[in-house]
Amino acid sequence: MTTPWNHRCAQRMQSMKGSAIRELLKLTENPDIISFGGGMPAPEVFPVEAFRAAADRVLAKQGKLALQYSATEGYRPLREWIARKMAQYGIESAPENVLITSGSQQALDLLGKVLINPGDLILTEKPTYLGALQAWRAYQAEFATVPIDNNGIQVDLLEEALTSGPKFMYILPNFHNPGGVTLSLERRHKLIEFSDRYGIPIIEDDPYGELRYEGEHIPPLVVLDAERFKNRHGRGVDDNGYFDGIAPTNGNGRAYMRGNVIYLSTFSKTLAPGLRLAWIVAPVEVIHRCTVAKQGMDLHTATMNQLIAHEILTGGEEGDDFLKGHVRLIREVYRERRDTMLDAMERYFPEGVSWTSPTGGLFLWVTLPEFLDSTELLKMAIEHKVAFVPGDAFHPHGDGHNSLRLNFSYCNPEKINTGIQRLGKVIEQAIEEQSAGTPVLHTAF
Amino acid sequence: MTTPWNHRCAQRMQSMKGSAIRELLKLTENPDIISFGGGMPAPEVFPVEAFRAAADRVLAKQGKLALQYSATEGYRPLREWIARKMAQYGIESAPENVLITSGSQQALDLLGKVLINPGDLILTEKPTYLGALQAWRAYQAEFATVPIDNNGIQVDLLEEALTSGPKFMYILPNFHNPGGVTLSLERRHKLIEFSDRYGIPIIEDDPYGELRYEGEHIPPLVVLDAERFKNRHGRGVDDNGYFDGIAPTNGNGRAYMRGNVIYLSTFSKTLAPGLRLAWIVAPVEVIHRCTVAKQGMDLHTATMNQLIAHEILTGGEEGDDFLKGHVRLIREVYRERRDTMLDAMERYFPEGVSWTSPTGGLFLWVTLPEFLDSTELLKMAIEHKVAFVPGDAFHPHGDGHNSLRLNFSYCNPEKINTGIQRLGKVIEQAIEEQSAGTPVLHTAF
Repeated sequence: MTTPWNHRCAQRMQSMKGSAIRELLKLTENPDIISFGGGMPAPEVFPVEAFRAAADRVLAKQGKLALQYSATEGYRPLREWIARKMAQYGIESAPENVLITSGSQQALDLLGKVLINPGDLILTEKPTYLGALQAWRAYQAEFATVPIDNNGIQVDLLEEALTSGPKFMYILPNFHNPGGVTLSLERRHKLIEFSDRYGIPIIEDDPYGELRYEGEHIPPLVVLDAERFKNRHGRGVDDNGYFDGIAPTNGNGRAYMRGNVIYLSTFSKTLAPGLRLAWIVAPVEVIHRCTVAKQGMDLHTATMNQLIAHEILTGGEEGDDFLKGHVRLIREVYRERRDTMLDAMERYFPEGVSWTSPTGGLFLWVTLPEFLDSTELLKMAIEHKVAFVPGDAFHPHGDGHNSLRLNFSYCNPEKINTGIQRLGKVIEQAIEEQSAGTPVLHTAF
Repeated sequence: MTTPWNHRCAQRMQSMKGSAIRELLKLTENPDIISFGGGMPAPEVFPVEAFRAAADRVLAKQGKLALQYSATEGYRPLREWIARKMAQYGIESAPENVLITSGSQQALDLLGKVLINPGDLILTEKPTYLGALQAWRAYQAEFATVPIDNNGIQVDLLEEALTSGPKFMYILPNFHNPGGVTLSLERRHKLIEFSDRYGIPIIEDDPYGELRYEGEHIPPLVVLDAERFKNRHGRGVDDNGYFDGIAPTNGNGRAYMRGNVIYLSTFSKTLAPGLRLAWIVAPVEVIHRCTVAKQGMDLHTATMNQLIAHEILTGGEEGDDFLKGHVRLIREVYRERRDTMLDAMERYFPEGVSWTSPTGGLFLWVTLPEFLDSTELLKMAIEHKVAFVPGDAFHPHGDGHNSLRLNFSYCNPEKINTGIQRLGKVIEQAIEEQSAGTPVLHTAF
C-alpha cells in the first residue's frame, strides 16, 4: 500500500533525483573507507576555539538578539563586513547589494526560483557543479554546455552556444568544482566581451577564490565587467558616484553594481560549512526579488550563526584580521595535501590516466582511458576501501563516463597517499580486466 | 537603465510579493511604536544561559562535528529525540519519519516543491497562515477556502469545497494563526472522516500546540487519522508491528506512519526562532522526496544549531526534562499577556468590535465593523504608535478587510495595555470619522 501523497507529487520531481555526492557522504561514515568523494573541508582547520569564544561572547552580550527572528536580507553588520571585504577584491558593492543565504546552495536555489521558467536554457561549463544542476533541475531548466580545458571554459566554442539563447551563463572561474582548473585572465576578458555582445548575463560562483596555493589572484568576472562598462563610457562613475544612467539604489544614493554579473561566495570553505552561511552580491533589484523569494523559503538565515560569524570576523584578538590569518593556515594545510595527492598520483596511477593540477581549491579532475566507466570503477574502488565521485554526475547530459573527481582537502596526507595507492591499483586492475576482455566495464566505443 | 536580470525574471515571480509581516517587522525596530504585528516570541523567555552553556559544551566536545557538513535529513540524535517526543502526543513515528528543516517556513516551501504543480488547488482555512500562502504562491498554487469560527474550520461547509478537487488541505488545528481559535475534537473527527471519504490528505501545521494556557490537550489530526485507520481494520498494528498491508519502511521493519496526514512542528516557539529549526513528520516516501528537494535547496540545516538544540534538550542539569520546564515558564508569561490584552480590549475597544479568546498560542483575531478597512486603520494606528497586521494578508483572495491580527506574546503587559488603549482610540476615531462621512475609510458595502 502506498500513501495518498505518492500520486500527488509535482511534475518537477521527475527532474530531481538524489545526488551521488549525498550517497557518497554516507560512505565517509565508514572509517575504513578513504573517501575523496565529498567536498568537505578538513575539520582540523576549523577554528573551533575561536567559534567557542565568539559564541560565548554573542550569547553573553547579544543573546536575545541572536535567538530572535531577524531580517530576511541578513544581519546588517555582517552585510557591511561582506561589502567591505568584496571591495578588497575590487567588487564595488554596498550592503544593499548583499543578501545572506543559508549556504551557497540556497543562493543557487533562490536564483533558480527568481529567474528560471520551465524549459529555460542555462549555459554551464562541462563539467559543472553538481549542486547547481540539482537546484535548477527543480525549476525544469535545460542545459547547454561548453567544455573546459586547463584554462577554464573554452571561449572559442562559446559563441555558438550563446546563439542558442541561454537565459544566463553559470561560471566557476577559480579552482573549478569539479574540474580543478582556473579561468585565465585573457579568457575572462573574452567571456565578458561575449556576455556583453550577446546580452547574456553571468552568475559567477566563487566559493574557493581565497584558497589559492600559488600564482597571482585573477580579478573576478564581476570586476572585469564593471571595468569594461566604465571604459566604454569614457570614465568611471559620474559625479554623483553612479555608473552613467543607473538610478541610485541605496541610502547613500550610490548604485554600485552594473549588474551584468551576479557574484556568489560563502563562508563554508573559510570558516565552516556547518554554519550554512553564504552570500549573493547583485544589483539591488535582484537582491529585492531574491529577498521576497527567500522570505517564502526560510524567512531568514539563522540569526545566531550570522552573529557568531560576525563576532569571529571582527571581535576576537586579531580584530578584522582574523580571516586573513586563518585562510593563510588553510592554504598551508591544503597546499600540502594537494601536493601529496599529485605526487601519489604520479607514483601510483597507471599510464593512460591524466589529471588536472589545481592552483587552489579543493578538487582535481581525473580522466581515465576512454574504455573505462568511473561508476563501475567506483564499485570496485569501494571494495578496495577508497571512494570518489564519478564524472557523469557533473555533466548535465550524463556524459563524462571516463572521468572522476577527487577531493584533496578532507583526508590527511597519510590517508591521501594510501587512498591514491589503492585507487591506482583499482584502475590498473580495471584496465587489465578490460584488456583481457572481462566484461566488467562499460565500453564506450 | 535597468540591469539585464529585470526582463529575465521567472513567471512565478508575478505571484510573489513581499509580505505585510516583513514590512511590519521593520516597524518594530522603532522603539516608540508598540507593535502587535510580528509573530515574535518574547525575548525575555529565551533560555539564553542554557543556550550559552549548551553551545559551550557542544563546541568543546563536538566542535569539529558541529562545524562540518552533515546529513540532509538532519542530525540523527535530534531526529530520534523528536520521534520520542512525538510519541508522547500519540504520534507513532520513527526517526526515519522525521526531517529537520530550516524553520517551518522551509517545511512549507519543501512540501510546495514536492507536491504543487502550477494551477493546483489547495484547500486552506479562511483566514490562514500568511507564510503558507507565500510559500505556495511561488509554485503558482490556487486556493479554495473554508471559513473558521470559534471552533475552527467549519466542517459543515467542507464537503462542497472538497468536491472542487483540492490536492490537499492545510489545517492549523491549535491556537490558529491568525485566528486564535482551536479546532474542537468533534470537528477533528469529522475532518478526518471527510479527508478519508474524499481522499484528500492533510498537512497539519502545529507550531503552537504546546503553548496551551487552559483546557485539555486535544489529539492532533495525525493521531486521529491513524486511529480511524486502525479501527476500520479491526485491530491496531499486526504481529510484525505494521499497519495492515503497509510494507516495512525503516531499519526496524516498522512502518509507523499511515501517512494521510503530514505533521509539522518547530522549536521556534519553545526554544528560539533565531535557530531556524523545525521538522516534518511524514511517511518515509514523503521524507525521501523532501530530502531530495532539500538537498538542492540548502544541502542541510545548520549542523551547529542542531547539535546545540539537542544538547539543550538532553544535556543540561534537567536532562530530558528541560523543555517541559521551559515550556511551563513560557505558558505562564504568555497566559498573563493574553489575559492583559483581553482585559484591555474589554476596557478600551468600542462597541461593534469583536475578537477571539485564544486558549493558547500567540495571536488573537479582531473583527471591526464591516465599514472599516484595517489597512487604512493601520496607517492611522502607526501615527498613534501602535501596529498590527491587517486581516486581508491572511486571505488568499484578499477579503477580510475589516479584520486584523494581534500578537500578545512579544510585548510586556504594560506595553500591551498602553498599545491596546492607543488602538482603541484609533478605532473609535475611525468609527466616528466614518459615521461623520469623512471619506478616509474604505466602504465595503
